[in-house]
Amino acid sequence: MLVIDGLQYVNWNRALFAEARDGGVNAIHVTIAYWENTQETVANIDNWQTLFKEHGDLIMPVRLAADIVEAQKLGKVGIILGFQNCSPIEDDFRKVEYFHERGVRIMQLSYNNQSLLATGCYEDADAGVTRFGREVIREMNRLGMIIDMSHSAERSTLDAIELSTRPIAITHANPASFHDALRNKSNTVIKALGASGGMIGCSLYPFHLKNGSDCTVQDFCMMIAETADLIGVEHIGIGSDLCQNWDYSILEWMRSGRWTATADYGEGSAENKEWPQQPNWFANSTHFGNIAAGLSAVGLSDIDVASVMGGNWLRFFEHSFAAAGA
Amino acid sequence: MLVIDGLQYVNWNRALFAEARDGGVNAIHVTIAYWENTQETVANIDNWQTLFKEHGDLIMPVRLAADIVEAQKLGKVGIILGFQNCSPIEDDFRKVEYFHERGVRIMQLSYNNQSLLATGCYEDADAGVTRFGREVIREMNRLGMIIDMSHSAERSTLDAIELSTRPIAITHANPASFHDALRNKSNTVIKALGASGGMIGCSLYPFHLKNGSDCTVQDFCMMIAETADLIGVEHIGIGSDLCQNWDYSILEWMRSGRWTATADYGEGSAENKEWPQQPNWFANSTHFGNIAAGLSAVGLSDIDVASVMGGNWLRFFEHSFAAAGA
Repeated sequence: MLVIDGLQYVNWNRALFAEARDGGVNAIHVTIAYWENTQETVANIDNWQTLFKEHGDLIMPVRLAADIVEAQKLGKVGIILGFQNCSPIEDDFRKVEYFHERGVRIMQLSYNNQSLLATGCYEDADAGVTRFGREVIREMNRLGMIIDMSHSAERSTLDAIELSTRPIAITHANPASFHDALRNKSNTVIKALGASGGMIGCSLYPFHLKNGSDCTVQDFCMMIAETADLIGVEHIGIGSDLCQNWDYSILEWMRSGRWTATADYGEGSAENKEWPQQPNWFANSTHFGNIAAGLSAVGLSDIDVASVMGGNWLRFFEHSFAAAGA
Repeated sequence: MLVIDGLQYVNWNRALFAEARDGGVNAIHVTIAYWENTQETVANIDNWQTLFKEHGDLIMPVRLAADIVEAQKLGKVGIILGFQNCSPIEDDFRKVEYFHERGVRIMQLSYNNQSLLATGCYEDADAGVTRFGREVIREMNRLGMIIDMSHSAERSTLDAIELSTRPIAITHANPASFHDALRNKSNTVIKALGASGGMIGCSLYPFHLKNGSDCTVQDFCMMIAETADLIGVEHIGIGSDLCQNWDYSILEWMRSGRWTATADYGEGSAENKEWPQQPNWFANSTHFGNIAAGLSAVGLSDIDVASVMGGNWLRFFEHSFAAAGA
């Protein structure tokens, strides 16, 4: 069964690449920017080029959906480069093309804060996609770079769905009806996403889960089944948001970047600020089988399980990564 | 009479410095950033250091209000460095202190578009000052850097007035009741500004004037008299927005920066895109006397005329440039 993870943020090394491959993961969307500016992101891509050379027996870059099929055939993990913010393009729409040329295929229009393009889900108010945002959406549509609104606020997300001529993605989030969190999405957003042909990757980050780290695989899979009833199973994938091998300083960077003098605790709090513990049935990339089994257990057909585990992302990427008009 | 101009954007050379000095201008807030990032702004400041050395007989830097008094005594033009956008600080609140150390004393929280801090007046909607914006306001308040909302939208401006512990400025704009333009300000904003101890610098940029380039000095001065009736004369200065010695490519930069693939015409239009012609009674820095005479002619007392021409800015700068608690 093809397995695609719609988002991970991992401090990669050979052992972790091998773990993902041995876990049967065929492709992973990896995050290479939260607050990084152009120069810092260029350096991160350069580092990935080195990883592709050093671990070419385990991983390979994904530029087109066909590369994922190739990765599966070769028993490698396909790597899709993506940004969780638009900080890498700074104030220049031309950098969308630059980063597309360098292999980036997915970009969030905002992280948790207001960006130059859209509003993040942690702001008090949301005025929607900006003037610059509309220009960037047009450019991403032209090139074949997926608009990801995982961390964006409600109105901006609805705007992006409306403005984009291609379906967009929420690579890693859950319905707020499952667990009420700023990062999870209203049924209004989820229905608009589905109706427009978009994809949601369901998240296994404990702050997005009912009962957090104690969430059961059954509850998680029931959420997927219910979301499938709402918008159709073909719009649902996994976006685990698995974070591995980072110390707390990286979580501080993700939350506070360079924008605040006082610590921001994001989805945590001063008393509960550390990396959350993963549910024991999804501790790492070897546990995708538990989700597939859980989906069968809640009644999904084999075909639907395969769609959620990877088939839907593959089909979505086939359309999304192709240049406009292709 | 002390003359202070709350904003000019000029391609300076020795002749233009001499013209300002000969025109009796004692201090000018000069713009050194519209879209420039940190590195580009650092270069602009370095260039100003060179200008201060090469033309030290005509100009001097202003870091405190007392420097303006000194400039007047020495017969030089005091130069206040400022930004019309927050692009120079990028995503880093610590750069506020860096640029303050380098002499920058005024910063707009946005230009015409959404910034990381606030919304510009050309956006369709305005969600107010952002999370990062609140951090930056706190830092500007601490250091003694003036928050300028000349190009910001309504709600963001009202937020800034409310959030800032020091009075803020609108260095260059007019009441929308005088001329209805996106860049001019509602009476709601102007009254809140005045009530909080802030300052508005009245603009002579033709797009902000009733009848544009054909605006009469009498109409301009009547507008000032009426605004004085509304909020008190002590909150009013001149912020001419005089632009000199630039070719059209600079106007394109100001309007379109790097954010759009298609030309943005800002306050102009495709048919009327060039630099507007100044009213003949305010063509350059030698014409401040026409405004002073016009203010007398519409009935302002000599004391009030002096206040508007420079006294109000000086008093405002005395409080604004001092470090917090000083």
